[in-house]
Amino acid sequence: MSGVLSLPELLYDEIVKGALREDLGRGGDLTTDAIVPKDRDGRALVVAREAGRIAGLDAALHAFRLLDPAGRFEVCRPDGSDARAGETVARVSARARALLTGERTALNLLGRLSGVATATRDVVRRLEGLKTRVACTRKTTPGLRALEKYAVRVGGGETHRHGLDDAVLVKDNHVAIAGGVAEAVWRARAGVGHLVKLEVEVDTLDQLDEALAGGVDVVLLDNMSLDTLREAVSRCRGRALTEASGGIRPENVRAVAETGVDLVSLGWLTHSAPALDVALDVLA
Amino acid sequence: MSGVLSLPELLYDEIVKGALREDLGRGGDLTTDAIVPKDRDGRALVVAREAGRIAGLDAALHAFRLLDPAGRFEVCRPDGSDARAGETVARVSARARALLTGERTALNLLGRLSGVATATRDVVRRLEGLKTRVACTRKTTPGLRALEKYAVRVGGGETHRHGLDDAVLVKDNHVAIAGGVAEAVWRARAGVGHLVKLEVEVDTLDQLDEALAGGVDVVLLDNMSLDTLREAVSRCRGRALTEASGGIRPENVRAVAETGVDLVSLGWLTHSAPALDVALDVLA
Amino acid sequence: MSGVLSLPELLYDEIVKGALREDLGRGGDLTTDAIVPKDRDGRALVVAREAGRIAGLDAALHAFRLLDPAGRFEVCRPDGSDARAGETVARVSARARALLTGERTALNLLGRLSGVATATRDVVRRLEGLKTRVACTRKTTPGLRALEKYAVRVGGGETHRHGLDDAVLVKDNHVAIAGGVAEAVWRARAGVGHLVKLEVEVDTLDQLDEALAGGVDVVLLDNMSLDTLREAVSRCRGRALTEASGGIRPENVRAVAETGVDLVSLGWLTHSAPALDVALDVLA
Amino acid sequence: MSGVLSLPELLYDEIVKGALREDLGRGGDLTTDAIVPKDRDGRALVVAREAGRIAGLDAALHAFRLLDPAGRFEVCRPDGSDARAGETVARVSARARALLTGERTALNLLGRLSGVATATRDVVRRLEGLKTRVACTRKTTPGLRALEKYAVRVGGGETHRHGLDDAVLVKDNHVAIAGGVAEAVWRARAGVGHLVKLEVEVDTLDQLDEALAGGVDVVLLDNMSLDTLREAVSRCRGRALTEASGGIRPENVRAVAETGVDLVSLGWLTHSAPALDVALDVLA
Amino acid sequence: MSGVLSLPELLYDEIVKGALREDLGRGGDLTTDAIVPKDRDGRALVVAREAGRIAGLDAALHAFRLLDPAGRFEVCRPDGSDARAGETVARVSARARALLTGERTALNLLGRLSGVATATRDVVRRLEGLKTRVACTRKTTPGLRALEKYAVRVGGGETHRHGLDDAVLVKDNHVAIAGGVAEAVWRARAGVGHLVKLEVEVDTLDQLDEALAGGVDVVLLDNMSLDTLREAVSRCRGRALTEASGGIRPENVRAVAETGVDLVSLGWLTHSAPALDVALDVLA
Amino acid sequence: MSGVLSLPELLYDEIVKGALREDLGRGGDLTTDAIVPKDRDGRALVVAREAGRIAGLDAALHAFRLLDPAGRFEVCRPDGSDARAGETVARVSARARALLTGERTALNLLGRLSGVATATRDVVRRLEGLKTRVACTRKTTPGLRALEKYAVRVGGGETHRHGLDDAVLVKDNHVAIAGGVAEAVWRARAGVGHLVKLEVEVDTLDQLDEALAGGVDVVLLDNMSLDTLREAVSRCRGRALTEASGGIRPENVRAVAETGVDLVSLGWLTHSAPALDVALDVLA
Repeated sequence: MSGVLSLPELLYDEIVKGALREDLGRGGDLTTDAIVPKDRDGRALVVAREAGRIAGLDAALHAFRLLDPAGRFEVCRPDGSDARAGETVARVSARARALLTGERTALNLLGRLSGVATATRDVVRRLEGLKTRVACTRKTTPGLRALEKYAVRVGGGETHRHGLDDAVLVKDNHVAIAGGVAEAVWRARAGVGHLVKLEVEVDTLDQLDEALAGGVDVVLLDNMSLDTLREAVSRCRGRALTEASGGIRPENVRAVAETGVDLVSLGWLTHSAPALDVALDVLA
Repeated sequence: MSGVLSLPELLYDEIVKGALREDLGRGGDLTTDAIVPKDRDGRALVVAREAGRIAGLDAALHAFRLLDPAGRFEVCRPDGSDARAGETVARVSARARALLTGERTALNLLGRLSGVATATRDVVRRLEGLKTRVACTRKTTPGLRALEKYAVRVGGGETHRHGLDDAVLVKDNHVAIAGGVAEAVWRARAGVGHLVKLEVEVDTLDQLDEALAGGVDVVLLDNMSLDTLREAVSRCRGRALTEASGGIRPENVRAVAETGVDLVSLGWLTHSAPALDVALDVLA
Repeated sequence: MSGVLSLPELLYDEIVKGALREDLGRGGDLTTDAIVPKDRDGRALVVAREAGRIAGLDAALHAFRLLDPAGRFEVCRPDGSDARAGETVARVSARARALLTGERTALNLLGRLSGVATATRDVVRRLEGLKTRVACTRKTTPGLRALEKYAVRVGGGETHRHGLDDAVLVKDNHVAIAGGVAEAVWRARAGVGHLVKLEVEVDTLDQLDEALAGGVDVVLLDNMSLDTLREAVSRCRGRALTEASGGIRPENVRAVAETGVDLVSLGWLTHSAPALDVALDVLA
Repeated sequence: MSGVLSLPELLYDEIVKGALREDLGRGGDLTTDAIVPKDRDGRALVVAREAGRIAGLDAALHAFRLLDPAGRFEVCRPDGSDARAGETVARVSARARALLTGERTALNLLGRLSGVATATRDVVRRLEGLKTRVACTRKTTPGLRALEKYAVRVGGGETHRHGLDDAVLVKDNHVAIAGGVAEAVWRARAGVGHLVKLEVEVDTLDQLDEALAGGVDVVLLDNMSLDTLREAVSRCRGRALTEASGGIRPENVRAVAETGVDLVSLGWLTHSAPALDVALDVLA
Repeated sequence: MSGVLSLPELLYDEIVKGALREDLGRGGDLTTDAIVPKDRDGRALVVAREAGRIAGLDAALHAFRLLDPAGRFEVCRPDGSDARAGETVARVSARARALLTGERTALNLLGRLSGVATATRDVVRRLEGLKTRVACTRKTTPGLRALEKYAVRVGGGETHRHGLDDAVLVKDNHVAIAGGVAEAVWRARAGVGHLVKLEVEVDTLDQLDEALAGGVDVVLLDNMSLDTLREAVSRCRGRALTEASGGIRPENVRAVAETGVDLVSLGWLTHSAPALDVALDVLA
Repeated sequence: MSGVLSLPELLYDEIVKGALREDLGRGGDLTTDAIVPKDRDGRALVVAREAGRIAGLDAALHAFRLLDPAGRFEVCRPDGSDARAGETVARVSARARALLTGERTALNLLGRLSGVATATRDVVRRLEGLKTRVACTRKTTPGLRALEKYAVRVGGGETHRHGLDDAVLVKDNHVAIAGGVAEAVWRARAGVGHLVKLEVEVDTLDQLDEALAGGVDVVLLDNMSLDTLREAVSRCRGRALTEASGGIRPENVRAVAETGVDLVSLGWLTHSAPALDVALDVLA
């Protein structure tokens, strides 16, 4: 799917403006304003310094457009492409001041989102040949959820819940307050509409049985051993989707997936994936 | 210094509100609203699941306060503390709904900022016994610069420029456009005020000499070999501060520092440091 | 459920502030400032002038609190209550200026949201004894979706999608572009995650069969005759939920529901329900 | 006048952006993104499904422009036109995704504002041959006052006060606090500037005499019988404008107007007028 | 009136927050954070260094409250008071950091608004014994109109129009486009509602006659000689209010007023009045 | 430098939009909408009515562009030019309504910023032949700091600190709390990074010696007599820059500068400089 994904400008316009204003402060770019003539034109290449999956390129280029509405852009490797180390991702023609002043904002966005997409892609690749899908969580950067969830999709992953309001996820604390899985599931089902799926986190096979009896769409199998996961998957067959989570990292994700779970979810994809190294090469 | 650092609420209030609204969406917390009685009170512990330096605790707790203005908080390990794995960082008493609904927002902030502070602290520790200081860069998350720079300080590092307007940093592209280091430095000095320090990035010893001749406050020694760094440090003694940058990671930072540079700067601290694992344990 | 519903202040705070600022303009309340002494205290009753279901009371009272943080409130008929004509809904003690200046903002919110809740309740009542549930649509007032969806829930209805991102609803235009129901359903299923339900709008029984073959969660039966609806319901039994829509008003809703559909949805509930008549009686 | 009315984009830009963001949420249009190719172009007609006065067309089309800045628009029935049922109001050429994603936002705005304009026009028509003018009140939707007041003007009505700061309206509660109509009028006149008109609400003929003695510009005759209204009109002739209000609906508005009042005002125009049924027909 | 004027917090809250954020930047108060212990309490006096009329004190103190919600305030000379040089205007008890960090924001607001109020008061005093009133214009600081208009009222002046939407002011350019005063007045009267006053700017006595014939509420006599003003006043008696404007400064205002005009308006009050010198004395 | 200064649109866009919205209110430009046909085109000249240094022209013209995106502009006297009385600064072609509606917003910005630039230029000119530079302070208008600091630069002055976070300025209150100049300087130096300059305010020569001993970059010599200033300058030679402040006005600035101080700073430039008289001449 990722070749056709796009992100409406409305979902990143304020973020890019905010990042630029954060960098411009109250005095603008002291260095560039002092050194670079106001009317000088420039050209630059956005380059991937290391190999990775590109995500967020439109948002990144928006930084230059906000500083020079007459700037022109040629996208060489659009979102969803896999760039090689050293490969040119985009070409930019704009006022030289716009290039230098917008550089950091553009690269900060592109590096972070491509980092998330690359990490997701790498996890997806480790599961080649298996039917297990990869999902992220709500462990995203404050203010950037829409962008990071988008980057996960660009990497081939799934977004899971976008927030607290688009699906039910009954967790251990809800179960404790309700007094049991069955009661929690019953309350949740009674409280939400016909388009809301219901997922329940279970820690044990007993809780799993209770959840299945209550009729749930998905079970979140949290921090289970591989053997228990396999047994859980077997019990869920045809009754509910299975999602494994808890301490899953690239290193162990294939072993978890081989238990047959439908999904694995990794908070790591959004809270700790390293940025992709990207750079702006300004041409003479 | 870190024990006395604080961040005015004005610098995080909108960020926390935005993160909560991002999570609440248009329907609020479907799960909690369906399962947890509106008036039920609750207590919870904010816990460090792994050892690390705490940063951003006030901002994190603000999430609960926004959902329950009557909530009460006991801070056990304030910003700047080093928490052990499993240690309680804060205690919260509030409506149970506020605890469950605010959990992810609070933890996302605390985990990210503590991750930055912990990474910084760890780099600082590697330089024990040396005079070299650790600085971050402008490679921060869009929208979170003030918070991430603060976290670096909590970790014992320096903030470097907050943005483009509080110091001059002449980089390679500026030099290329000006036609040389000397001309770039001259233009910069003429263009800025008496409270602005002037730093120049140099790649070679020849450029360094040109910069020193122009009279700069700091030289940024970019991607130099250790031998070249040592020579550069020697030439700068008494004339300018020295800052090494380019590909510095925890693994090689001590070797770089032992060249005698005054500062090392690492973009990695803010763009790729993993989040600290923190959790909310809701009490029965 | 409605007795326990609540709306986080974060979801209405900006709306109430915006409404007050819209009313205060740049000069404030000329009349009240000229006539009412600054320090005079006052008391007032929020009264339902006609019978209806109360919704949005906290948001309405927030208008007074923003004008006088020391104001005190006694809620007599909380959200979800059915007030009789003339019944007191809340008592307010605050500066007299705050009462008079905030009156219109508070009543505009309360009247509109209670109007939506009352309209929903009345439709729900018409279906007494049937299993059919009542849902609203995305035909809401710009800026007020969260509040109006909440009011529908307070009235006993369901929220349907909160927006374009929490469920799939394949409509006629999507089908036309995809080249058929089956292809559209296939694309949609491939493009979304495991927590997203899939609903398809169908106009004919042939389209219905195609949708059911594709495996959907819900079918939206649009503008069908009662006979066709009955047949559609019969074909869907055990395979998909059924939702009837198109021109449903209070007058004909029971006839539609008696076809056995699981849900009826009415845009009318949010785009055209009349406001409930509420007033502020200021006491001497 | 209505043929030449226009609304500056500055007064609706944020509202349209907010409505689109409210609908896009954090994940965008799941359905359209999955089904409709990114680069596919489309054409669509904005159609009035029922007869009515068009208002808010520029704001509605702005939704499409925000999603596709290259979109083109042909306005067939501009604001102030009376469209017949089935008539095309505007033609839109844009990316197909922009058409489908922006549809609901555009129609919600157009339907609501045209509903207000149509209701106003219908009331105005009922007064044909009389000199009485039709005004709305401040009973508007939070956040939409400028737009709804504009729609009233498009319908041929007057806007009355835009807020609390552009005219004085002394109401019963002000009179009660001041201790009488005369004192309230005196205080108001002393407290406001030379460009502010002064209107007083009176319930009885005695209050009316007191108001006239105080020298007011307009009297608001609230909830008076037709006979009393006639008498009030007679006493005001040449001394103050007369405005009738209180329970005026389309059904009884002509009877009220025939008493000779200069204005009738109806909160119903903005708080309870049903939306006009408008649709988007996407062409193959 | 001025003793009872007040400004709702909603009209200055965002302005004060914005001013503080503008000053805090992304790094907060470097100096104070480094020098002043976090928990140290402090006391300070807000002092008028020169004599003047106080305005904006609540807004100024709000800066301290935003930095320390537990801060306490004693207002000695509220808005509308005339402070002597050296007089204490307010006492503040708060964290020492809040006092030092908020000082400039608080004083910038208080100095500017008291400057406007003082200038207005001084002009009003020059007209002692005359019936002529003093008004300001729309020549206000971008973003501060509500506050500066308020300060004019505190100084004893009138606010004139708050904006383009609360009264008609036909100016020379309107007259030129309409093709004459009479036509412009006719169009304006036809286009606005019953609560809108109509003022026309005239440069000559012929234009004045035309305006009076058209029936206007106020005539703006622009840049007329004293003799012409006197004649204009005489022609307007009983027919329209008269307002003189154009180059009126404190030095010549009494001469203008003695022509008998009802109002004089001075853009100078808001665009060029010097700030009042106010200071914060922090106590040991 | 001033001929090449520019201000990114991002730093004024929201300010101009806010100023226009403040003026449009909720009803728009009543007068212009009633009198000027919607499609009529117009031309106008922005004219300096008195001689002065132009600043803020792009921001001012932005007001017209926001009201008519198709408007065209010819800049005759760009920022940094010295206009003569009566000289045309810019030519504007746009819808006539845009010209009349945007006039006040555009002129308010241009007049204020040109006023600041002109005042700065005039002070700079008084120092002709001396090496002393002119700086402003943080005594700026809330919300306009970036613009006013820019105007100072356009006038030939320096910006001093942009806020509390870009340099250290130890003032009397900090010294009092620290218990002495030496301790305050020591704390400050230990608390800030390598790119932050350190300035200390001193009132006496003893304090000056203490500051110099502590090693500061700049000393702020506050309210000293000319003799003391001369002595202070002599002591600082080669050790620190000297800045004089306190009661400096155009009248006495040269005498102060002749003491040899490196800088003089005047709050007056931004808090009390009169606006430049600028006008819009609409052509027939």
